[in-house]
Amino acid sequence: MSRSIRLAVIPGDGIGQEVVAQGLKVLTAVLPQDVKLETKEYDLGARRWHATGETLPDEELESLKQHDAILLGAIGDPSVPSGVLERGLLLKLRFAFDHFVNLRPSKLFPNTTTPLAGRPDIDFVVVREGTEGPYTGNGGSLRTGTPAEVATEVSLNTAYGVERVVRDAYERANARPRKKLTLVHKNNVLVYAGHMWKNIFDRVGKEYPEVTTDYLHVDAATIFFVTQPERFDVIVTDNLFGDILTDLAAAVTGGIGLAASGNINPTGEFPSMFEPVHGSAPDIAGTGKADPTATILSVSLLLRHLGFVPQATRIEEAVAADLEARDGSPRSTDEIGDALAARVAG
Amino acid sequence: MSRSIRLAVIPGDGIGQEVVAQGLKVLTAVLPQDVKLETKEYDLGARRWHATGETLPDEELESLKQHDAILLGAIGDPSVPSGVLERGLLLKLRFAFDHFVNLRPSKLFPNTTTPLAGRPDIDFVVVREGTEGPYTGNGGSLRTGTPAEVATEVSLNTAYGVERVVRDAYERANARPRKKLTLVHKNNVLVYAGHMWKNIFDRVGKEYPEVTTDYLHVDAATIFFVTQPERFDVIVTDNLFGDILTDLAAAVTGGIGLAASGNINPTGEFPSMFEPVHGSAPDIAGTGKADPTATILSVSLLLRHLGFVPQATRIEEAVAADLEARDGSPRSTDEIGDALAARVAG
Ligand SMILES: CC(C)[C@H](C(=O)O)[C@@H](O)C(=O)O
Ligand SMILES: CC(C)[C@H](C(=O)O)[C@@H](O)C(=O)O
Repeated sequence: MSRSIRLAVIPGDGIGQEVVAQGLKVLTAVLPQDVKLETKEYDLGARRWHATGETLPDEELESLKQHDAILLGAIGDPSVPSGVLERGLLLKLRFAFDHFVNLRPSKLFPNTTTPLAGRPDIDFVVVREGTEGPYTGNGGSLRTGTPAEVATEVSLNTAYGVERVVRDAYERANARPRKKLTLVHKNNVLVYAGHMWKNIFDRVGKEYPEVTTDYLHVDAATIFFVTQPERFDVIVTDNLFGDILTDLAAAVTGGIGLAASGNINPTGEFPSMFEPVHGSAPDIAGTGKADPTATILSVSLLLRHLGFVPQATRIEEAVAADLEARDGSPRSTDEIGDALAARVAG
Repeated sequence: MSRSIRLAVIPGDGIGQEVVAQGLKVLTAVLPQDVKLETKEYDLGARRWHATGETLPDEELESLKQHDAILLGAIGDPSVPSGVLERGLLLKLRFAFDHFVNLRPSKLFPNTTTPLAGRPDIDFVVVREGTEGPYTGNGGSLRTGTPAEVATEVSLNTAYGVERVVRDAYERANARPRKKLTLVHKNNVLVYAGHMWKNIFDRVGKEYPEVTTDYLHVDAATIFFVTQPERFDVIVTDNLFGDILTDLAAAVTGGIGLAASGNINPTGEFPSMFEPVHGSAPDIAGTGKADPTATILSVSLLLRHLGFVPQATRIEEAVAADLEARDGSPRSTDEIGDALAARVAG
């Protein structure tokens, strides 16, 4: 564990700025006195794109690389054509820094609202592949805008890419009490990619005899997310299926305001990046209504990744205690951040 | 409206046989005396494949074509490698008969169990594209089974294919009281296909000034399916997103036992095919536990498609009344079929 953290901060768009401020507040409060925190803020996102046309210049990418980790708020604004910032900035970072494990824990905290009747016991983590599948930007369009247009999207999958994320998921499952791993894909239709995923999943599984395994088609998985979410422990899945499933998971576990994520490069070759699952929510930006908890829980993932395990746990416990204690009256972004900072410092 | 129906019947695997028998029972009961119903049963599915290696021979496809409609139970069995029957039979039929509108209504009937707290008012229909997207079987794998394997899946989308299904969805939205149409895609990542869908959606929308439109990314759509399903009226979406969303829709509206679907060729060039959304459920096959309601509601879609509108409505009303009247004690497949047959005949 290093006694200093060089943290790159990308507040981004909409509520990004507001929630990241709270994340940093809690981070500062939880760190031991002797740990030096150096932060560098990057002006990336819609404002920058409007001003300069840039999404992520090469020098900035180089500079970001010189950090131990990245904290990101949210990217995207309706004033920018759909895809420009997502592909030019967010996905560019995930791909450039080889964030092949997109880690998204889902837990139903006490005293939170779930749309599910009966409040099932939910505590699982999705290991979403982060650098392949339909996210590679492969594809194109021919005769664009005419009645004869053809558009393709290519899902690229490699044994190299699938095996490393599957192995990571087995490790995580093996380290949890229930030791259960579910592969989600659609191998009855996407037979090429699906069979490769399944074969690798089965083969690597032989090295983890204590892990119980299961396979579900993605459509069936969505059913279980709402009827029987307690059946899941660790889920490993493709980039797109993981995107869809983790929004659904967030919805059933108290909402997108609590869903944290880590874009992890487990080899340590590049900095990992931590961000709430939610978007930039321009409709509530500046109103103080944004819930910073998802960002603060992302800071917890960041700390755990950097080896500050007790501090990471302290944040999680603080969030649980804070949710338990709240009385239902609305609190501002700042108030939630202050409450959590006080708890972790305490 | 023709006074005779030539119906091809594919019971298929698992519970398929059992639920189709009830579908035919109710169909016979609801049809006016003077309508001649000719059925022809096709032995297709796992048994046939094990016996002969065939999934759907050309002569059978030719013969199926000579019908007004097809009623299908369920396809798939764990004894057959994943994908063989799905691609060789079910999807082959959808593609060969150009079923470009995969129609999947979702309605929360009275007195049914939903996993959602608060029982929102759900009544929407998904128009899922049925002949393109990632379902075309385009793709492949190189160096299969080696550490250097690469597997691709290509999503193919054409303006021709997108426009016809989008137009169908506008027509359906325009004919409903709320007149609202939501496009679901992922155009911030799948920019080629996504932008084509969105451009066509916007352009065709100009012809339907009374229809209110909305766009959602597929991940966000899953959130609304559980937190605010009442916001949807008609949804139009891609083949794969539609697959995922309609299982989720079935789960939130009383379960997959009630979800009906129609694979429709609106031009009438080929027979349309009606089937429950659920699978062959081999675990309960032969136990009499299968709920035939989804198949019976699929028969209602079939009748509406063939112009037997009052009969179609009678089935829907019978299902609503039957669900309303039940007292919670379990009923067998047969008992539910009998009850519904009695109601529609009555
Ligand atoms: C903004 C978008 C590109 C992104 C994704 O699809 O991965 C988001 O939905 C997420 O889940 O982080
Ligand atoms: C069995 C499978 C090929 C099929 C699909 O993916 O379309 C099913 O899930 C469905 O929704 O009808």
